[in-house]
Amino acid sequence: MTTHLHPLDRASSLEQNSDGLWYGHTQPDYDNMVGPFGGVTSAVILNAALKHADRLGDPVSLTVNFAGPIEDGPFTIAAKAVRTNRSTQHWSMTLFQHDGQIATTASAVFAIRRETWQSTELTFPKRQPALSLPRANTSKAPEWTRRYDMRPIKGLMIDGQQPTQEPDAITEFWIQDDPPRPLDFVSLTAICDSFVPRIFVRRMGRFPAGTISLTTHFHVDTASLNSQGANHVLGFARASTFGLGYHDQSAEIWSAQQQLLATTHQIVYYKA
Amino acid sequence: MTTHLHPLDRASSLEQNSDGLWYGHTQPDYDNMVGPFGGVTSAVILNAALKHADRLGDPVSLTVNFAGPIEDGPFTIAAKAVRTNRSTQHWSMTLFQHDGQIATTASAVFAIRRETWQSTELTFPKRQPALSLPRANTSKAPEWTRRYDMRPIKGLMIDGQQPTQEPDAITEFWIQDDPPRPLDFVSLTAICDSFVPRIFVRRMGRFPAGTISLTTHFHVDTASLNSQGANHVLGFARASTFGLGYHDQSAEIWSAQQQLLATTHQIVYYKA
Repeated sequence: MTTHLHPLDRASSLEQNSDGLWYGHTQPDYDNMVGPFGGVTSAVILNAALKHADRLGDPVSLTVNFAGPIEDGPFTIAAKAVRTNRSTQHWSMTLFQHDGQIATTASAVFAIRRETWQSTELTFPKRQPALSLPRANTSKAPEWTRRYDMRPIKGLMIDGQQPTQEPDAITEFWIQDDPPRPLDFVSLTAICDSFVPRIFVRRMGRFPAGTISLTTHFHVDTASLNSQGANHVLGFARASTFGLGYHDQSAEIWSAQQQLLATTHQIVYYKA
Repeated sequence: MTTHLHPLDRASSLEQNSDGLWYGHTQPDYDNMVGPFGGVTSAVILNAALKHADRLGDPVSLTVNFAGPIEDGPFTIAAKAVRTNRSTQHWSMTLFQHDGQIATTASAVFAIRRETWQSTELTFPKRQPALSLPRANTSKAPEWTRRYDMRPIKGLMIDGQQPTQEPDAITEFWIQDDPPRPLDFVSLTAICDSFVPRIFVRRMGRFPAGTISLTTHFHVDTASLNSQGANHVLGFARASTFGLGYHDQSAEIWSAQQQLLATTHQIVYYKA
């Protein structure tokens, strides 16, 4: 039994078999409308590289392509370091289920990170502290939303609140795992996909929509992530353009200490 | 002989062998400081899917990981449609050379695009028309820069001009293939990587730097691209953050008719 584990650790749990493949299982804790929450799929596929004996350094970039639906139940991840250099390593991953058809593909770049000149060009979006804002009521939203303590600032669109301002494609919130869990690359990856499709926000409604490709750039190393603890992080998401059945989304994840932890960019299928 | 071809068509030219693999050759026309210009590597790897008999629809998303150096000479690309759905198709590509070691990996999502509700959220950066600005002198820059007619507005950093304003990480220019060539997914992909590393602009100098992962989101279909002709397009690039040996770059490519053609996001290794 693994019931003492945090739900995210249960959902991202993997066992390596003698064939080198990783075996996992979807968890109802992170159910989405159909299949599992994509953020957790991204997290578990990254975890196959993170946990791998061959792994070098920390993740710098991750791209996950959602090629087909994932059914509730067991899944298998093949993860391979396709090239290892002195300080960088390139990974290729695929997730499949009993039918053998590939459901998810991914690639990642890992690197040994070293101190260099540094500067953040974006301005931290100063907002009211998380704990001064009410928690979103996600009782009518998919199950995964209840694995997070979300404190909406604008455009959450999963709490039954209708926006009062002119529609734009922007969401801002504070978010924290519930129960609280110290931030790591697994949870940060999942949080990067915790925004609703931008079409919901821009058009103030529900539409058929789903992420098809998700890229995340990590701007912190393990040491810096470890210092974050289990505090809320600030999420800011927007879109560049909607058209021809697809829209993009770019998002920033900031610590309360104004550190840019990750930026993430995705392409989303929609009907509207 | 293929000397009548446009240099970009020569550099992205591929022949499929009976083994299903694609064979190409680097071209000195697009030499960078070391190895070929990454934009052309992205373009040729996308071309292996574009030219493939199995291809469905237009590219929506492309991620290219630069895993190792490419030597001048022949290369081979393996391109596979790992999953084909009703209206989307997921591709996996690898580029390798005579030593068999993988130099570049890529994934792409293709889709049959259909008219939907549409809106562009970003504001077109209105600038002086391309032809009213002087062409950059790239005579001292790498060879590939002379395959483009670049009309710098700000922060080009390959024309010997020193910026006169406070340093930021922003580049703006008009760019066109030279000789002019009607825009398509191949040339648009290459143009998406035609900005210098942001560290050059932010620190106003030269540093060891190179793209390690490049994601491009395409916001147009073939019909719309065909209507662009060979006109200059407007490029706008910035960075979110620099630190721990890597910085990101996000860029927009716009037509002169204010259409957002592509957005692109990359992670760049640097020493500074």
